[in-house]
Amino acid sequence: MTDASPSSTPPLIYVLNGPNLNLLGLREPQIYGHVTLADVEALCHQRALGLGVAVSFRQSNHEGVLVDWIHEARTEAAGIVLNAGAYTHTSIAIMDALRGTGVPAIEVHLSNVFQREAFRHHSYPALACVGVIAGLGPMGYELALEALAGRLKRS
Amino acid sequence: MTDASPSSTPPLIYVLNGPNLNLLGLREPQIYGHVTLADVEALCHQRALGLGVAVSFRQSNHEGVLVDWIHEARTEAAGIVLNAGAYTHTSIAIMDALRGTGVPAIEVHLSNVFQREAFRHHSYPALACVGVIAGLGPMGYELALEALAGRLKRS
Amino acid sequence: MTDASPSSTPPLIYVLNGPNLNLLGLREPQIYGHVTLADVEALCHQRALGLGVAVSFRQSNHEGVLVDWIHEARTEAAGIVLNAGAYTHTSIAIMDALRGTGVPAIEVHLSNVFQREAFRHHSYPALACVGVIAGLGPMGYELALEALAGRLKRS
Amino acid sequence: MTDASPSSTPPLIYVLNGPNLNLLGLREPQIYGHVTLADVEALCHQRALGLGVAVSFRQSNHEGVLVDWIHEARTEAAGIVLNAGAYTHTSIAIMDALRGTGVPAIEVHLSNVFQREAFRHHSYPALACVGVIAGLGPMGYELALEALAGRLKRS
Amino acid sequence: MTDASPSSTPPLIYVLNGPNLNLLGLREPQIYGHVTLADVEALCHQRALGLGVAVSFRQSNHEGVLVDWIHEARTEAAGIVLNAGAYTHTSIAIMDALRGTGVPAIEVHLSNVFQREAFRHHSYPALACVGVIAGLGPMGYELALEALAGRLKRS
Amino acid sequence: MTDASPSSTPPLIYVLNGPNLNLLGLREPQIYGHVTLADVEALCHQRALGLGVAVSFRQSNHEGVLVDWIHEARTEAAGIVLNAGAYTHTSIAIMDALRGTGVPAIEVHLSNVFQREAFRHHSYPALACVGVIAGLGPMGYELALEALAGRLKRS
Amino acid sequence: MTDASPSSTPPLIYVLNGPNLNLLGLREPQIYGHVTLADVEALCHQRALGLGVAVSFRQSNHEGVLVDWIHEARTEAAGIVLNAGAYTHTSIAIMDALRGTGVPAIEVHLSNVFQREAFRHHSYPALACVGVIAGLGPMGYELALEALAGRLKRS
Amino acid sequence: MTDASPSSTPPLIYVLNGPNLNLLGLREPQIYGHVTLADVEALCHQRALGLGVAVSFRQSNHEGVLVDWIHEARTEAAGIVLNAGAYTHTSIAIMDALRGTGVPAIEVHLSNVFQREAFRHHSYPALACVGVIAGLGPMGYELALEALAGRLKRS
Amino acid sequence: MTDASPSSTPPLIYVLNGPNLNLLGLREPQIYGHVTLADVEALCHQRALGLGVAVSFRQSNHEGVLVDWIHEARTEAAGIVLNAGAYTHTSIAIMDALRGTGVPAIEVHLSNVFQREAFRHHSYPALACVGVIAGLGPMGYELALEALAGRLKRS
Amino acid sequence: MTDASPSSTPPLIYVLNGPNLNLLGLREPQIYGHVTLADVEALCHQRALGLGVAVSFRQSNHEGVLVDWIHEARTEAAGIVLNAGAYTHTSIAIMDALRGTGVPAIEVHLSNVFQREAFRHHSYPALACVGVIAGLGPMGYELALEALAGRLKRS
Amino acid sequence: MTDASPSSTPPLIYVLNGPNLNLLGLREPQIYGHVTLADVEALCHQRALGLGVAVSFRQSNHEGVLVDWIHEARTEAAGIVLNAGAYTHTSIAIMDALRGTGVPAIEVHLSNVFQREAFRHHSYPALACVGVIAGLGPMGYELALEALAGRLKRS
Amino acid sequence: MTDASPSSTPPLIYVLNGPNLNLLGLREPQIYGHVTLADVEALCHQRALGLGVAVSFRQSNHEGVLVDWIHEARTEAAGIVLNAGAYTHTSIAIMDALRGTGVPAIEVHLSNVFQREAFRHHSYPALACVGVIAGLGPMGYELALEALAGRLKRS
Repeated sequence: MTDASPSSTPPLIYVLNGPNLNLLGLREPQIYGHVTLADVEALCHQRALGLGVAVSFRQSNHEGVLVDWIHEARTEAAGIVLNAGAYTHTSIAIMDALRGTGVPAIEVHLSNVFQREAFRHHSYPALACVGVIAGLGPMGYELALEALAGRLKRS
Repeated sequence: MTDASPSSTPPLIYVLNGPNLNLLGLREPQIYGHVTLADVEALCHQRALGLGVAVSFRQSNHEGVLVDWIHEARTEAAGIVLNAGAYTHTSIAIMDALRGTGVPAIEVHLSNVFQREAFRHHSYPALACVGVIAGLGPMGYELALEALAGRLKRS
Repeated sequence: MTDASPSSTPPLIYVLNGPNLNLLGLREPQIYGHVTLADVEALCHQRALGLGVAVSFRQSNHEGVLVDWIHEARTEAAGIVLNAGAYTHTSIAIMDALRGTGVPAIEVHLSNVFQREAFRHHSYPALACVGVIAGLGPMGYELALEALAGRLKRS
Repeated sequence: MTDASPSSTPPLIYVLNGPNLNLLGLREPQIYGHVTLADVEALCHQRALGLGVAVSFRQSNHEGVLVDWIHEARTEAAGIVLNAGAYTHTSIAIMDALRGTGVPAIEVHLSNVFQREAFRHHSYPALACVGVIAGLGPMGYELALEALAGRLKRS
Repeated sequence: MTDASPSSTPPLIYVLNGPNLNLLGLREPQIYGHVTLADVEALCHQRALGLGVAVSFRQSNHEGVLVDWIHEARTEAAGIVLNAGAYTHTSIAIMDALRGTGVPAIEVHLSNVFQREAFRHHSYPALACVGVIAGLGPMGYELALEALAGRLKRS
Repeated sequence: MTDASPSSTPPLIYVLNGPNLNLLGLREPQIYGHVTLADVEALCHQRALGLGVAVSFRQSNHEGVLVDWIHEARTEAAGIVLNAGAYTHTSIAIMDALRGTGVPAIEVHLSNVFQREAFRHHSYPALACVGVIAGLGPMGYELALEALAGRLKRS
Repeated sequence: MTDASPSSTPPLIYVLNGPNLNLLGLREPQIYGHVTLADVEALCHQRALGLGVAVSFRQSNHEGVLVDWIHEARTEAAGIVLNAGAYTHTSIAIMDALRGTGVPAIEVHLSNVFQREAFRHHSYPALACVGVIAGLGPMGYELALEALAGRLKRS
Repeated sequence: MTDASPSSTPPLIYVLNGPNLNLLGLREPQIYGHVTLADVEALCHQRALGLGVAVSFRQSNHEGVLVDWIHEARTEAAGIVLNAGAYTHTSIAIMDALRGTGVPAIEVHLSNVFQREAFRHHSYPALACVGVIAGLGPMGYELALEALAGRLKRS
Repeated sequence: MTDASPSSTPPLIYVLNGPNLNLLGLREPQIYGHVTLADVEALCHQRALGLGVAVSFRQSNHEGVLVDWIHEARTEAAGIVLNAGAYTHTSIAIMDALRGTGVPAIEVHLSNVFQREAFRHHSYPALACVGVIAGLGPMGYELALEALAGRLKRS
Repeated sequence: MTDASPSSTPPLIYVLNGPNLNLLGLREPQIYGHVTLADVEALCHQRALGLGVAVSFRQSNHEGVLVDWIHEARTEAAGIVLNAGAYTHTSIAIMDALRGTGVPAIEVHLSNVFQREAFRHHSYPALACVGVIAGLGPMGYELALEALAGRLKRS
Repeated sequence: MTDASPSSTPPLIYVLNGPNLNLLGLREPQIYGHVTLADVEALCHQRALGLGVAVSFRQSNHEGVLVDWIHEARTEAAGIVLNAGAYTHTSIAIMDALRGTGVPAIEVHLSNVFQREAFRHHSYPALACVGVIAGLGPMGYELALEALAGRLKRS
Repeated sequence: MTDASPSSTPPLIYVLNGPNLNLLGLREPQIYGHVTLADVEALCHQRALGLGVAVSFRQSNHEGVLVDWIHEARTEAAGIVLNAGAYTHTSIAIMDALRGTGVPAIEVHLSNVFQREAFRHHSYPALACVGVIAGLGPMGYELALEALAGRLKRS
């Protein structure tokens, strides 16, 4: 689908994090634990190495920046791992961006959103993603990378 | 209502485009066709010429930027053509900005939003606009300009 | 799609008006202004002339008559401008008639229905129309004629 | 408000009956009793005599005909007693007709609609009527005439 | 059904008024006019005289008192005219009281409640009343008395 | 229940068709196939012959006409097969007409309405019919005739 | 939990009855039977005797009085049997009173409220009660007393 | 679609009955009449004979058994007549089984489910069936067999 | 109603337990305590002895088995105590089985279901039971047996 | 607006408390803390002194008494601080009383009602109050007094 | 809780304003009056002086910027006064930011949002704030500062 | 938590599949592909080998059997991978079984259920699972095994 995985350089996967994830490990440990976003990034790079892919790991509190990055992925990335945080539940713009770029994406949530407030049970990006992984903590990012890498090999 | 249309310079109309419209022509052609946003801008300038108005044509993926531009229109523009994209369905802030500026605005959608997902049937900006044009493709922008120009002549 | 636009005679567009529109200009001027339906008809004929199309302008308070006319348009007209009035919000029959005839139609409302009672926010015919124009007063009819004429030229 | 009540002729009140009321007395006597619509008409004329008003009593199963009659009342009648039958619950067109004519109207129901199916609890015409009388059988028509006659005297 | 109407004394009808009706004429004249509750009581006594019935006219702001009075009516009254004010929309207790006493009752509202806030469109007592009269001002009380008197004559 | 089936003439069954069914075979063949309404009428007459009943087959786009015909069936027909088309979903008047006439009726739909838009899942006439047959195409009419003929024999 | 059950005097249980229960046996026997509230009181005292508890049996049509009595139970009673009648479905105040006093309470309904109108399916007090017994008639009061007495023995 | 109808043996149709249908004729005769399930089976075999098809008639109270039988039908049957009883309204599993097997199925209900409790108005299997027959009693099974036989002949 | 209680043998009451109740005492003690289902059975037999009835105590995780047992109760039992566990909230089949057998049943829940998740507030079997007892723990079974025994004595 | 603040005596403000607030400090300290209503009253008098206003501080568990007091405020008070407790969420009567008296009122809640049960998120009195203060504990009363005093100075 | 209030410098409170508040005094004076945001800032600084706190007063139309500022407050501020404008009703991100930082916050609205459109009745930030003040105009900011200062003194 | 992972034998994980999954690869390949359930089982055993765990792979169309297996897992398994198929959306019993056993479980769906019918967006088991993986096809099972194995190592 995209030309982002030439022979010599590994395919690039954008790992995009939405609002408040920069506070990870600092806030509400009873929900999110003590792992920081830097820890998650490290985990991702390590797993990516094993999978033969590269990772560009980013975070923003701005919905528009997330939309911009997804657009950028259209020509720069072979896949997207997206934890849109609170925008998951409200952003049609991010869903439209995913549909518009056509890059395969997997939605990840650290916590099991289906056990939290009702307004967290709905996801707009999920309507434009290949699949969803929720509740498995930082390992969810790793599994999403593996699933995307698997798709890249098969395609 | 505004002083933006002095004798020598034509009245200025802001044509504001929201998230993902920069992908126009590149994404989902079965819904949006192959016309690009630059094509739409060209159409607008051409029609504006015939109507005796000028057009400032802009696009942003950021809700806050759209709010800022609408505020700016308060002193700089005689009318607004607004295609707020996905923010149409979620942004009370944009609706409030339109109400706060008092500049007459017409909402435009390229596709017939009433035939798409249910969450696209509702529009906040429409509650603060003179009217709505949907489903007529890029010509919708032209017709909105004509309607605004007609209002300017009558006022 | 239809044979209604032979070389020598201009394509015919049905402009169909639903219940209570015969009272236009006589009722609730704070919503609809002082223009009468005869005035709107005159505007339509005048604009049609410039667009190279002909207009058959009609009004009925009977849902069944509107359905009949839409059926008739199947063989007699190249397009429909439809202001179904109150039937907009309740008539599945009119929507089905539009789908059944396949003649391109544009829905027009004089007022911005999205700023009125909640039961006026839904339209059945819009589910079967090319697009919708609302809130632009009698000019809405003119713009709908232009959009239909534009479609005819392109097809 | 209207000129329908000159010195020598009594003011005219339209008593309009909607679908299925022609079956009155023939159908579902456990709800509607054995009085026929002709009996109701006779009661109305008799009461009207005592109130110094005249009555034009009509019935139709066609929504459009009811709309036409309400329009006609605009110049011909000083008041309307309306039992719109099943259209009470579905006809925005009849409500709009009442608003458009500006003739004072009172809605009447023979049965207590609030004790029947949920879809009979809502009335569109009530949104455009002076008031509502329900559940008092044919006497409801008489009381509505008295209320309208009282308004005419006071105005 | 009840023995409350012996030969020599006229049947007694309870006219019960709920919360805030003591402010009538003093509050919100744009909705309720300038007639006071004492004026309404006088109108009721006068009409009752003509109808051959007697009236016991009362008002309370307490739901429990209204329930008590309805219970009392079971042995003391031949009918009830009930304007339960705001309790109309919230009191299942009053509805149950009406059902429990079996005295025929007619619900009256001064204003057309169907044109006011949505929470005023529902009535619990109406589920236990013979009928409803709304929007006809103080005359509504008179018409309710006439309807009850008519029932008493027929029974 | 009715006297419509004397010894010498076969009982008459009204087969009533609502709005847009006159377009059958001409519209949306992917939903309705290529059979025309005339074809359906021929099928009905043929089947009726075998069942010993007669058929009066009619179509109208007017809700009021359908109500009139159902009223007429009260004295003229022994049963009704009703495909009310779009009015199925909106017409309380037709339901009330069926209840008012007391003639046994069976609702028929060519397509499986339960697989189409949500607003087609509800039927008012079904609340007043013996039963419903949906999704079996023109054969549905035949089966409905057989079921009605079976009832007539048993009664 | 409370000190209301000293050695020499039996623990006191308040049996509180809400609006219209004073009519028991007099109203709607098809729902409630012919047993009067005095009969229920006698049953309660008799059963209490066997259980070694005392009963204070009361009824009021006033929501505020029920709240007052529940407050009083805070220092005077070891348990509450509550049949709040129609207030069951509307009174947050009674629920808050139960929570505020902390006295264990069991909600009782004579009829099976789950088979009656939808608005009787919800109970506010049940949110603050130990449990609910419904549909078992006057025996429900006895069983509630037994359950409370059992709790008192265990605590 | 299936090979289940070779020249010498008649095509086999599974007639599957869900929970409580074994009580037919024994329960609630005011809804279901006095015909037993054995009677219905006899009717089916008799009609099948005339239609040139064979019937395997079964009943189970277990949702899983119904799913198993539908799976079995995939290779063994040419059609399914399904009266899933109460599972009609709750079983997505049965709907999925029908979709998964691809055998044409017709849903049958003895009573007119649209006139019963609201929770009986929805059917999951109907979303995977050719059509629905309701309210025609045991004859509904016969008509479903005829419709399936007709399909088999045409295919 | 049934012949299940001859002179010499005590009437038999089925105590039926639904899914997961076999885990009682082993799971979620903060909700259900430490009593096991065997303990509850022992309590039931002991209480039954005092009431002069016999108990057949069963548990199944299969909805269909519960339906089968309820059918069996039709000829074998004089009453049913039913704790349908999670099927309480989803099983129309169990409700229909209760209606079909006509054996008087009382629904029991160990916990106060009205204080738990919203989806546990609704009960289908309650629509077919004499009454409901909730929140009183294992004693609820005993009270249900007493209530059924009381009914048997009175009948 | 009112004459309740003559030169020599300070303006009087009614501080009205609804059901269960008499238990303050005694109940649910995890929500309401240990401050009693007498403590709140003392705080109010102290703050009122500093603001140059007087306070009449009252509590009732009776909705009708609260309505009566609000009526009384019409002639006796210059402002109302209202904590209607549970009636906040159910009492249209209290809202109507506030509208009827026209005395400026501020609604106060000790706890942040928006973080509690959903039925506490709605307030009827708030529709008739100047503003709302919630979640600030007893200080909320003080701030409401200051806001009212500020309004009195400005008016 | 935070170290932001050392002995020599006054504790810092962030006063954060959301979209369109920069138009204050310029827009819709019938709702918001003529006070500008600069005026509000001046009021805040003046009040803060009296309370012994400092204020950092900011405004942004960007949701992401508000999230950033709330994060910043985590280490820089002792409290937050938040008027999130239209984002109040749509921003789960802002709510999550407040929860993540743990700085005590009070939500302020100039107008009584409960008397405006229904979509303004809900607040996400209120779920993470100590309390809410609405409808008291600019004074609401002052009262919020006082409440926060009071908390700081007590903690 | 469980003793199911002694030193010499690998921990056992139950992989449980619900209704219709036995048709995998045979049905609706556009949704589920051509992989059979046996293929999925093989994948699971292979992955388990690498992870140092054992797998017991099962399928049933019976809700009760799934409940039984989950109970069995309580003493026999160290984790559960659950694809409950259609029961995902309707089975509170399965959710309760998971809660009752306390064995960590991960819900897996082959397709992205959030892009299918609305009734597939809700999951009861998810309320009792550690997490959810959807839309990743058979690889989802592998990732779930890895996540469970990871948990076992950490615990």
